[in-house]
Amino acid sequence: MTTWVTNAWYVAAWDAEIDHQPFARTICGLPMVFYRKLNRKIVALRDACPHRMLPLSKGIREGDSIRCSYHGLKLGPDGVAEEMPLKNEPVNARICAEAYITHERYRFVWVWIGEAAKADPALIPDLWPCAAPGWTFDGDYYHVACDFRLMIDNLMDLTHETYVHANSIGQEEILEAGIECVADNKNVWVRRWMPAVTAPPFWRAALAEEGPVDRWQICQFNLPASVMIDVGVARAGSGASLDKHDQGVRGMVIDFMTPETEDTHHYFWGMARNFEVNDAGFTSRFKAQQGQVFAEDKVVLEAQQQAIRANPDMRLNAYSIDQGGVRARQLISRAIKAQALEQVNEQENSQ
Amino acid sequence: MTTWVTNAWYVAAWDAEIDHQPFARTICGLPMVFYRKLNRKIVALRDACPHRMLPLSKGIREGDSIRCSYHGLKLGPDGVAEEMPLKNEPVNARICAEAYITHERYRFVWVWIGEAAKADPALIPDLWPCAAPGWTFDGDYYHVACDFRLMIDNLMDLTHETYVHANSIGQEEILEAGIECVADNKNVWVRRWMPAVTAPPFWRAALAEEGPVDRWQICQFNLPASVMIDVGVARAGSGASLDKHDQGVRGMVIDFMTPETEDTHHYFWGMARNFEVNDAGFTSRFKAQQGQVFAEDKVVLEAQQQAIRANPDMRLNAYSIDQGGVRARQLISRAIKAQALEQVNEQENSQ
Amino acid sequence: MTTWVTNAWYVAAWDAEIDHQPFARTICGLPMVFYRKLNRKIVALRDACPHRMLPLSKGIREGDSIRCSYHGLKLGPDGVAEEMPLKNEPVNARICAEAYITHERYRFVWVWIGEAAKADPALIPDLWPCAAPGWTFDGDYYHVACDFRLMIDNLMDLTHETYVHANSIGQEEILEAGIECVADNKNVWVRRWMPAVTAPPFWRAALAEEGPVDRWQICQFNLPASVMIDVGVARAGSGASLDKHDQGVRGMVIDFMTPETEDTHHYFWGMARNFEVNDAGFTSRFKAQQGQVFAEDKVVLEAQQQAIRANPDMRLNAYSIDQGGVRARQLISRAIKAQALEQVNEQENSQ
Repeated sequence: MTTWVTNAWYVAAWDAEIDHQPFARTICGLPMVFYRKLNRKIVALRDACPHRMLPLSKGIREGDSIRCSYHGLKLGPDGVAEEMPLKNEPVNARICAEAYITHERYRFVWVWIGEAAKADPALIPDLWPCAAPGWTFDGDYYHVACDFRLMIDNLMDLTHETYVHANSIGQEEILEAGIECVADNKNVWVRRWMPAVTAPPFWRAALAEEGPVDRWQICQFNLPASVMIDVGVARAGSGASLDKHDQGVRGMVIDFMTPETEDTHHYFWGMARNFEVNDAGFTSRFKAQQGQVFAEDKVVLEAQQQAIRANPDMRLNAYSIDQGGVRARQLISRAIKAQALEQVNEQENSQ
Repeated sequence: MTTWVTNAWYVAAWDAEIDHQPFARTICGLPMVFYRKLNRKIVALRDACPHRMLPLSKGIREGDSIRCSYHGLKLGPDGVAEEMPLKNEPVNARICAEAYITHERYRFVWVWIGEAAKADPALIPDLWPCAAPGWTFDGDYYHVACDFRLMIDNLMDLTHETYVHANSIGQEEILEAGIECVADNKNVWVRRWMPAVTAPPFWRAALAEEGPVDRWQICQFNLPASVMIDVGVARAGSGASLDKHDQGVRGMVIDFMTPETEDTHHYFWGMARNFEVNDAGFTSRFKAQQGQVFAEDKVVLEAQQQAIRANPDMRLNAYSIDQGGVRARQLISRAIKAQALEQVNEQENSQ
Repeated sequence: MTTWVTNAWYVAAWDAEIDHQPFARTICGLPMVFYRKLNRKIVALRDACPHRMLPLSKGIREGDSIRCSYHGLKLGPDGVAEEMPLKNEPVNARICAEAYITHERYRFVWVWIGEAAKADPALIPDLWPCAAPGWTFDGDYYHVACDFRLMIDNLMDLTHETYVHANSIGQEEILEAGIECVADNKNVWVRRWMPAVTAPPFWRAALAEEGPVDRWQICQFNLPASVMIDVGVARAGSGASLDKHDQGVRGMVIDFMTPETEDTHHYFWGMARNFEVNDAGFTSRFKAQQGQVFAEDKVVLEAQQQAIRANPDMRLNAYSIDQGGVRARQLISRAIKAQALEQVNEQENSQ
């Protein structure tokens, strides 16, 4: 029983992070090595040679295969042995490194954690703005020394912007607008509607119009570990609503929190937008700015994790602003329990 | 069952260490945040927001209250919620951070560890020279990576000065004088009388007289974790005795060892004296000198702690010179056992 | 039950590492202090004063004795108390630091780990080339953060040279020659014969002759933790064989892996040779070169140890090239089990 869902897709890397050279990253407690084949398809193997366990990420890529740099065992992209340390020795094809199923979508490399037979790309969360026509998408990678769920809490409650980001993007208005929170069995939505307000500088520049705006923030959690935040403004009275709002300018903040260990995670942050889509300079500036904002979150999240360790008699509490995070955690823990039950049933049926 | 006594006062800080800004220190395993109210009274709270556990020491003081810098929960100086993260949300007054009782005395900030109902300033150990007319008192703070009891052992047996401080304050004479050791149920005294000896340079300068002196060293342990060392010289034959010795010059070394964890502690060292009381330069020089002497102790104490970990099959042994430390440890462990018994009784009575 | 054999001799240090000053090293989990007496015999004691456990390696040597630098307890070279902290106090001769039996042979300081009554210098592994006439011997010390058995595996299978030392001593020929592996109850031999091959540069220079050579590599494991590798070449057809090969030039690589903890060890590497025995420059150059080669092994071995920790669901596997290491590990684990059984029997007999 861990803190994360299995039989699920997790983001392992940005597409550009992985190339022909071996790349090591631990995903959900499993050390993995990634590299691209000559046809640019991704290979993902356990990062330990099946012979003497030297990390394969220290190995040498040969064509689509990888050779361990200790004794030279050569494994194919499926992890199966192709050459023994002694070249004249017959290959034992039962020798293999655990191979993982990957899929590229939305500029991310996804890896399936769980039973291979259940891997289905249709289960990848729908992050449609990352690939929709008329939109552009880019982002960055950060390592964070806290439980991935603390980041989900953070993203499902934007009131923290007022305090954590007081000097950058924080705004008192966010505290004043009420939220509504709804959920189904895979998603949680926290929705905030701010009608006829003054557009903050960022959105005023994006909209390029004067006058009051209707503004929205919709945080959507997707099992197992992503949050998509729909943000934007439209001219007040132009007919935009929480449900439908293509009238103005719109951005989608994409966040994927991939557990590394129980108390560290990989944070993939990106932003898709439907304005200034051809302005690469906008993207660069925005990534740099976000890097500064995120540094503020990282300080808080890592201090929070340390305080959890230092005060073992205390528990996290939740107030009304936390309902999004609370429901997201409920979906995660239900999914973990359901899987445990399923495994018990499968074991009984197989007896 | 820990290594320290509860239902007791511990020194949390020198008075000057705590001001209006939040100040973090872990006392007896409890992370605490301290700050002064506008009236300069001390506030002490658990250093974890009751909401999402971010350390309150990262928060913002507002008047006498403190606001968490994550979601803005505002707590009063008693730890009780005064404002929710959403300002229009009714305050739930059951939300509170654990508050600790403090008391200022002898230039120290004392904190009560244990049941609040039993906190009584009369239980603060009597360190009278820190506040007596005709005396002056100052000192310093050090962090030491060892069990606080190793420091008590160190202070209750000054023979170590000959070896550890061979280049500074060590003197062979200390080894030659016999000691007497007595105890009651809260204190242990180790007393050493050196009649008609040559005054060492420090005391000769203080006495400002030639000729042989009677010299004394009286180490007094006070439950739970302080040692007061009465040191001085008087002209030989002037009538001074171990029991009464106001004839010459006299200093009181004050030491408080506050546990941080099982194997680290906060060391508060000070010296009160009844000579040169208006010479601030004397105080400065003496503090600087003591810093060097203490650096020698710190090396030994931390090496000792590491050796205890590295040799789990061995135990500390005690010889005649150690009787003061042995009795002090007995008082500590008796007090811990008595408390455990008391708790069992209270539980039985409440059934 | 540990990973190493007890009732055995281990190399504690090179002879030159230990002099009159106290020298600290942990051997098989036991912190020890070593120093030489005036007659240059080695003293080995537990590195913790029997009084308050300060490491004796921080003490002061006085003649053949050592005085603790905390309270001045003075211990003789047998570990028995000679002076109490108070000089006029009668010495309690039951006070003693655990003393270990040592023996100097082959330029190494050996220490007996286990029951003193069973210590017998005849049990020191026979590393005859380190002391034979017509041979010279020198080497170096390295600290390695891995289980000592990973180093034994490394040395009992030289095929790793092709990959780990591709830029230095690696050669494809090693992969092509078959090996034979034999064992008795204390030793394992892996033997490789390469007839009529081209001498690699190192051996060509040593032999100082042109033409094809017969080349051998014989790795010999000795319980509990040493490997001796017999390497060399002779002119092809000169009658050299795996069993007898004094015709050409010959070196003996001597390796002793002394456990420090379960996952760190002290590595003593040396080389004995029967050529250029008076060329001290050769020795110096060879030690420097070996330092570089070993740095390559250290990277691999420590990465391997980390991978073992990071992949707790995996096990080391063995192929044909590993038979030497596998048999060496079998001898080690059989010796550990036999000792455990022996202890049980001794306990039963004593009842």
